[in-house]
Amino acid sequence: MVIGLSTMLEKTEALFASDHASVVSMNLFVALLCACIVLGHLLEETRWMNESITALIIGSCTGIVILLISGGKSSRILVFSEDLFFIYLLPPIIFNAGFQVKKKQFFRNFMTIMLFGAIGTLISFVIISFGAKHLFEKMNIGDLTIADYLAIGAIFSATDSVCTLQVLNQDETPLLYSLVFGEGVVNDATSVVLFNAIQRFDLTNINSAIALEFAGNFFYLFILSTALGVAAGLLSAFVIKKLYIGRHSTDREVALMMLLAYLSYMLAELFHLSSILTVFFCGIVMSHYTWHNVTDKSKVTTKHTFAAMSFLAEIFIFLYVGMDALDIEKWDVVRNSPGQSIGVSSILLGLILLGRAAFVFPLSFLSNLTKSSPDEKIDLKKQVTIWWAGLMRGAVSMALAYNQVLIRELQETKIKK
Amino acid sequence: MVIGLSTMLEKTEALFASDHASVVSMNLFVALLCACIVLGHLLEETRWMNESITALIIGSCTGIVILLISGGKSSRILVFSEDLFFIYLLPPIIFNAGFQVKKKQFFRNFMTIMLFGAIGTLISFVIISFGAKHLFEKMNIGDLTIADYLAIGAIFSATDSVCTLQVLNQDETPLLYSLVFGEGVVNDATSVVLFNAIQRFDLTNINSAIALEFAGNFFYLFILSTALGVAAGLLSAFVIKKLYIGRHSTDREVALMMLLAYLSYMLAELFHLSSILTVFFCGIVMSHYTWHNVTDKSKVTTKHTFAAMSFLAEIFIFLYVGMDALDIEKWDVVRNSPGQSIGVSSILLGLILLGRAAFVFPLSFLSNLTKSSPDEKIDLKKQVTIWWAGLMRGAVSMALAYNQVLIRELQETKIKK
Repeated sequence: MVIGLSTMLEKTEALFASDHASVVSMNLFVALLCACIVLGHLLEETRWMNESITALIIGSCTGIVILLISGGKSSRILVFSEDLFFIYLLPPIIFNAGFQVKKKQFFRNFMTIMLFGAIGTLISFVIISFGAKHLFEKMNIGDLTIADYLAIGAIFSATDSVCTLQVLNQDETPLLYSLVFGEGVVNDATSVVLFNAIQRFDLTNINSAIALEFAGNFFYLFILSTALGVAAGLLSAFVIKKLYIGRHSTDREVALMMLLAYLSYMLAELFHLSSILTVFFCGIVMSHYTWHNVTDKSKVTTKHTFAAMSFLAEIFIFLYVGMDALDIEKWDVVRNSPGQSIGVSSILLGLILLGRAAFVFPLSFLSNLTKSSPDEKIDLKKQVTIWWAGLMRGAVSMALAYNQVLIRELQETKIKK
Repeated sequence: MVIGLSTMLEKTEALFASDHASVVSMNLFVALLCACIVLGHLLEETRWMNESITALIIGSCTGIVILLISGGKSSRILVFSEDLFFIYLLPPIIFNAGFQVKKKQFFRNFMTIMLFGAIGTLISFVIISFGAKHLFEKMNIGDLTIADYLAIGAIFSATDSVCTLQVLNQDETPLLYSLVFGEGVVNDATSVVLFNAIQRFDLTNINSAIALEFAGNFFYLFILSTALGVAAGLLSAFVIKKLYIGRHSTDREVALMMLLAYLSYMLAELFHLSSILTVFFCGIVMSHYTWHNVTDKSKVTTKHTFAAMSFLAEIFIFLYVGMDALDIEKWDVVRNSPGQSIGVSSILLGLILLGRAAFVFPLSFLSNLTKSSPDEKIDLKKQVTIWWAGLMRGAVSMALAYNQVLIRELQETKIKK
C-alpha cells in the first residue's frame, strides 16, 4: 500500500506542475552528475582538467540551454538554498578532509597553521575592511555603515577550504596542502569570532580590553569547537570498541560513524560554534582512533564511502555554480552599472591580494625561525604559492555573497521606487 | 568566507526561531538514531527485539516526552512529508533489497512471485473493495463513492515490502523471504495499474475488453519498469567496465553506482512507472553484472554502504512512526467516534485476512502443481506463514493512509460547520 499511495502521489504530482518540475530537475541534475563523473574520468589525463572544472563547464552549458529553452528567464534547475549547502553538502566535504588528512604533516605544522588561520586572517580582515572603507567611500557606491565594511572584511579575509581541495594535492605537495587547507579550516573559527565581535562591540574604538576579550573569545570558541569534535570522535571509538568487541557488524559501525560525525556538526551549529572546525577534528579523531577499532571491511567501506560522498558533494557544488554563473538577475545588476561593478570587483581583488601578502610573508618568516631542518622551512617559492593558493574565495562563497548583496540591492531599488 | 556567511546564517537562524527549532530537532533525531543503533545492538541477543522495534519504542517514548513538554500540542519533532519518504527513504531500502537478494532463489520462484503479486493482489483487491462497500454502507459512515471503495481495496491489497524485511530473514527462510518480499515488490506494479484503472475506467461494468486492457496495462507497466531498471544496471556495468578498465578509481565507481541507481528510481517516477520495481531490478542487475566489474575495494564498499544506508532509512522510518503513533490530531478523530473507528479497523483487518487467504492457498496449490521436488513445494505450514507475514500493511503505509483519511475528515468537518 506504500505503493498505492505512491501512485496517488504521482497523480497529485501531475496535477501540481511545480512538483512534476522538481522531479524533472532532480532527474536532470542526477544525470548531469553522472556525466560529470564520466567526462571527468575521460579527461583525467589532461593536465588542466578535473571533475570540478568539468562540472563547472557542464553546469554553464546546461545553464545556457535552460536559458534558451526558458526564453531568457532562468538558467537554474534547482534553487540553491544556503541550508542545502551548509546542512548537506559542506559537512561530508570537511569531514572527509579531516578523515583523510595526513595527521603527522598537519600537526607538525600546527603552530604555523594556527598563525595563518588566526593572526593572518585578522591582519587580512583589518586591511580589507579599512581599504574598502577608504576606497569605496571615494567611489560613492551607496551608504555602507562601518559594520558593513567590517562584514566585507570578515567575508573576504577567509580562504575557502573546499576550493583548496581542488587545487592542491595532498600527495604531491603535502606541506603546502596542510598549510593552506589547515588555514582554511582554522579561519572558520576566526570568522565566527569576528562576526560576533562586529555585532557586539563598537570596533571603531579598539582598546586593549576589547582586544583581550576578542582573543579570549577566539580561544574559547576554538577550544570548544575542537573539544566537541574530539569528543564525538572519541565517543564513536569508545562505543564501537566497548560494545562491538568480538561480534562486529560492519553496517552498524559505518552507520554509527556517519551519524556521530554528522551529530558533531549539527551540535556545533546548535551551539553557534565553528561547525567546520568541529567536524574536521571529529574526522581526524575518527581516522586516528575509531578507524583502528573497526573490522577490515568497515575500514575499506568508511574510507571510500566518505571519499565518495565528499566527491559527490563537491561536484554538486561546482555543477550548481556553473549554472548559477549565468543567472540573469545577477547580471542585470552588473549591466545596470558595469563600470562600478568592475571597479568594486577589482578593488576587492586588490585588497585580498594585499591583505594576504601582508601576513603570508611575515608569518612564514616567523614560522621559519622556529624550524631547524631546511625541509620544514617555507622557502620563498612556497610562500608565493601559499599567497596565491589561498586567494581563492570559493566559487560558492562568491555566489552566496552575491546573493546577499543582490537581495540588498533589490530591496533598495524597491524602496527607491 | 563560506565560513563568515555560515555565521551570518546562524545569526539569522537565531532570529527566526523556527529555523533554530529545526536544527534542534535534527540534532535530536540524529541522536535518537544513534541511540537506536546502540540499544538495538545491545538487545540483539533478545529473541523478540531488533532495531526496528527498538526504534518504534524509542520513538513512542520520545513522543510522550515531547507531548508532555509541549503541553499536549504535538508529539513530533519532524514533520513527515510523503516526499521525504518516497524520494529519500524508500529508494535505498528497495535498492539494497534487490542488491542483496539471493537471485537464484528469487528467479526459481519467479512464476509463483508473479502469481502472488499480480493475480493474488487482484483477488485481494476485489474482495476488499466489495467487502468494504457492503459492510461500510451498512455502518453508514459517510458518503463514499464507488471510486473510494476501489481505492481502499487498492491500498489494502498490497503487502508492505519494508516490513517484510524486518520479519523474515533471508538466510533462515530463503523460500518464504523471496516469496513474500518478491510479492511486495511486484504488487507495486499491480497497484499502479489499479490506480490508473480506477481513474480511467468505469469499473462497475467490467467486460472482457476492459479486463484485457487491464491485463495489457499491467504487462506494459511491468515490462517497462523492469526494462528501465535493467537498462540502468547494464549501463552502469558497461560504463564501469569499458571506461574504468585498468585504472580503477573506487570512489568514482561507488558514486556512479549510487547515482545510476537513484536515477533509475527518479526516471520511473518521472514516467509514472512503478519506481519500486525499477530500482529493485536495477539492484539485481547491479549485483549480478556491475558488482563483478569493480575493484575488490569497491565490492566491499558498495555492499556495506548500500546496506548501511538502507538500515539507516529503515530505522528512521520506524523511529518516526513511533513518534507519530501519539499524534494528537489523529487520536482526536478516534476519540470522537471510538466505536466507529474500532469497527472500521476490525472490518478492514478481517477483509485483509480474508482477501489474503483467498489467494495464498489456491495459488500455492497451483504453484505446487508445477514443482516436482518436494523441497520447492510450498507446504501448508509455509502457506500459513505467507498468509500471516504478508498481512503487514506497513506502519508507514498505515500512517500515510491515516493522513489521507484525516485530511478528508478534517475537510468534511469544516464543510459541515
